[in-house]
Amino acid sequence: MMSVLKAVDLLDNARGRGILIATAESCTGGLVSAALTDIPGSSRVVDRGFVTYSNEAKVEMLGVDPELIATHGAVSEEVARAMAIGALTHSRAQLSIATTGVAGPGGSESKPEGLVWFGVAFGDRVRTDHRRFGAIGRANVRAATVEIAVDMAIQLLARGP
Amino acid sequence: MMSVLKAVDLLDNARGRGILIATAESCTGGLVSAALTDIPGSSRVVDRGFVTYSNEAKVEMLGVDPELIATHGAVSEEVARAMAIGALTHSRAQLSIATTGVAGPGGSESKPEGLVWFGVAFGDRVRTDHRRFGAIGRANVRAATVEIAVDMAIQLLARGP
Repeated sequence: MMSVLKAVDLLDNARGRGILIATAESCTGGLVSAALTDIPGSSRVVDRGFVTYSNEAKVEMLGVDPELIATHGAVSEEVARAMAIGALTHSRAQLSIATTGVAGPGGSESKPEGLVWFGVAFGDRVRTDHRRFGAIGRANVRAATVEIAVDMAIQLLARGP
Repeated sequence: MMSVLKAVDLLDNARGRGILIATAESCTGGLVSAALTDIPGSSRVVDRGFVTYSNEAKVEMLGVDPELIATHGAVSEEVARAMAIGALTHSRAQLSIATTGVAGPGGSESKPEGLVWFGVAFGDRVRTDHRRFGAIGRANVRAATVEIAVDMAIQLLARGP
């Protein structure tokens, strides 16, 4: 429920400044855009969303360099950053929100279950962050990821492009 | 909860036949892809999703003819069909699911609140349908739309391309 208030906050802030939003989601698979578009009037703010579940989709839809994925893996700071930037260059939006993580069940030593990388971009400013949620369950990892992603967008928007 | 079982059914069926799925969503805003990717192992089946919330996104991401939107409106059989076809031509998927509707609140005489058009495509076969849910509330329109969209995909998959 907290995410509803956050989504309202983000949309109100963006609408007041004439800013459009785009999402680029891997592990959340559309949950971020679903949370934003759950709010009436969101069509004035949400331009589009890229659900880039496969690596091919990240490359083809967002222009993520396949070398980045090969070198750092899809769940990495570098790919989260490239997804956020790609969402801006492939849309009309000024603000983007990107997620890539291991929702689980399962993971690897270097990319454990519950590891999520976030990227948000506003104009030329890009911010990345990550969380290690651990094996809290696929649905919980995804829900927590939406919360933090929206929070990061709110904070970046408050700071300016 | 019913949609979880349906999503599992669709993914199992698709995986068993080596079929990839793409979504093209307007009124559901990512809920269809979120429902599919909520299932562990979905990454072997879900290729990508297009959340084409704005008309520009429908044109730019899916290749929907702007004339179709101008003539019939974004919430129409013609645009639902074009979205489903566009999702296949702009992805690696063989099966696509498209939604476009008036989630509300609000609507017009010709496009009342709760009107949703669906499109599903499997190879060369495309099927469209619509529902008039009425003013049952934005969240309910969206949830019911996910159910029916996944149902239509299951049925089309059962029939073959």
